[in-house]
Amino acid sequence: MTINRIWRLEAYPKGNDFASAVRLSEQPMPAIGDGELLVKNVYLSLDAGTRMWMTAREDSYSAPTPLGSAVIGFVLARVVQSRHPGFKPGDLVRAYGQWADYSVLVPAHGDIWVLDESVADMRQHAGVLGPNGWTAYVGLLEYGRMQPGETVLVSAAAGATGLLAAQIAKIAGSRVIGIAGGPEKGRFLTEQIGLDASVDHRAGDVEAALRAVAPGGIDVYFDNVGGPLLDAALPNMALRGRIAVCGLVSTYGREGVPGPARYDLVLMRRLNIAGFFSPDFYGRGEAINRLTRPWLEDGRITMPFDITDGLENVLVAYAKLFTGGNIGKVLVHLGE
Amino acid sequence: MTINRIWRLEAYPKGNDFASAVRLSEQPMPAIGDGELLVKNVYLSLDAGTRMWMTAREDSYSAPTPLGSAVIGFVLARVVQSRHPGFKPGDLVRAYGQWADYSVLVPAHGDIWVLDESVADMRQHAGVLGPNGWTAYVGLLEYGRMQPGETVLVSAAAGATGLLAAQIAKIAGSRVIGIAGGPEKGRFLTEQIGLDASVDHRAGDVEAALRAVAPGGIDVYFDNVGGPLLDAALPNMALRGRIAVCGLVSTYGREGVPGPARYDLVLMRRLNIAGFFSPDFYGRGEAINRLTRPWLEDGRITMPFDITDGLENVLVAYAKLFTGGNIGKVLVHLGE
Repeated sequence: MTINRIWRLEAYPKGNDFASAVRLSEQPMPAIGDGELLVKNVYLSLDAGTRMWMTAREDSYSAPTPLGSAVIGFVLARVVQSRHPGFKPGDLVRAYGQWADYSVLVPAHGDIWVLDESVADMRQHAGVLGPNGWTAYVGLLEYGRMQPGETVLVSAAAGATGLLAAQIAKIAGSRVIGIAGGPEKGRFLTEQIGLDASVDHRAGDVEAALRAVAPGGIDVYFDNVGGPLLDAALPNMALRGRIAVCGLVSTYGREGVPGPARYDLVLMRRLNIAGFFSPDFYGRGEAINRLTRPWLEDGRITMPFDITDGLENVLVAYAKLFTGGNIGKVLVHLGE
Repeated sequence: MTINRIWRLEAYPKGNDFASAVRLSEQPMPAIGDGELLVKNVYLSLDAGTRMWMTAREDSYSAPTPLGSAVIGFVLARVVQSRHPGFKPGDLVRAYGQWADYSVLVPAHGDIWVLDESVADMRQHAGVLGPNGWTAYVGLLEYGRMQPGETVLVSAAAGATGLLAAQIAKIAGSRVIGIAGGPEKGRFLTEQIGLDASVDHRAGDVEAALRAVAPGGIDVYFDNVGGPLLDAALPNMALRGRIAVCGLVSTYGREGVPGPARYDLVLMRRLNIAGFFSPDFYGRGEAINRLTRPWLEDGRITMPFDITDGLENVLVAYAKLFTGGNIGKVLVHLGE
């Protein structure tokens, strides 16, 4: 009888102190019921947004996760056992699973995709061809309403979603500026990814740095972080600029964060600020992948991976999302 | 030789202390050049938004008004003398004019409309059928994307634009809540205008009051004021709610106003915040009036006037816009 290890939420984390809030526990391998699947997780896809499920605040995306629950997140997994006609053992799936060796999935609850194994690097199902890619595509083009020739700013541009938004903006004909922390990420963005400029948010006055690289103003700000970088971006927005609010990672787990200091510019510059929530358009993922997969295959878009091995090391990997420790998509590899 | 009196900007006002900033001065009646008009102002249309032209801040709608300039604002006026083929003496016009007895207008600069004198109350050209009406219509339906059956909140609901937005929302099939100051305005809004509810922002906890009257959340917030009332409205916004930012009158003339405290809800509730600037759609005014004039004539929409007599009393009238002293449109009557 195999043991299954599961990370459980023991307390709502204070700030980003996850180590005090979650605990790796062991339980017997679960049995599945009719219509259910047992999957073995191959990769855990770590996303800052899942932080919101670990909060007791009623205003987060959904109801607070009950204490004692498994920590949830996207997984790439192999079906081990199926009692659902749409899935068979050996299928590679992407799903909302748990931080665990094995997960029980209920297809009737939605958000399980059988994956196309002709994709050369299966990890791209959690990269270009996964929720980060869909979020970047829809956020930039539909919420940000990017037009060719515009100037696009992306925060957390070396993170998974930001990097995809920045690359799609380039493909779609924009001038693209990425904000990231530290000179290494800046070089990566301009030299390897081909962005037009990068701004190091750890190096001084970001508002002035943005003015220098975008003297004509920013048409679209794809914002993953909120907070002080939003304050720096707002005075640099062009007339009729659009801010697509993908995330507010600088504020997660904090209370009493001040609102944007120059909110008046929403009126003065006729800005549009649009918050969006990617599960709203997960159903469009396969359609978007038909557009983005050729870009992946001909090398016009890429996604590096930051891989940590072992379920027991998940917190090391998760912390990177809140400290800017990663370039590209953060995955935890649990073995094939 | 007649003397012309003109209010001039002598200093950029501190806060809303206009008395120290503007001065009524006398000058000889101006002569007009080719392509120009001399008009006698009949009504000055006072709008809080013109406050923004009296600022030295570069981020306001336009360049700061040079000190010494006439204070500008919409006027209803009679053409006295015309050297432009499109206008003749006696025409009633609406224009960006000045706080003055007489104004020289330059039609080539735009924003002069010859008015339809078949409208029973000519003042409605500065009310339902004027820029406030167009702003309410476009702001509510296009920026706020109001749909029938939704719940609409309007701040400064007893002011000109707010009252029109609230009435158009009722006609278009919404449940409408108005925020206004004091019990008199509240009764006016519910008993005379027929809004579904009103909230007195001077009477305690506005956030809780809004929750009580809109337990299912606010779909569209037509915001004229910003500031603390926006903080009260944000936690009451429904999922996918829209905030149409028409004005931020609570913040005009103030520095360092904090941004909305619950900006995080933009993400959590997938809100859309759209700032707009009515001159962008003044060219559509006549088309909008074809839709709204029947509502005016059959009594489904109304606009009371708050009339002050005499150019010398303009500051008394103007102050009402910043202290909530008016119900309906504030006009200064200068004589026919």
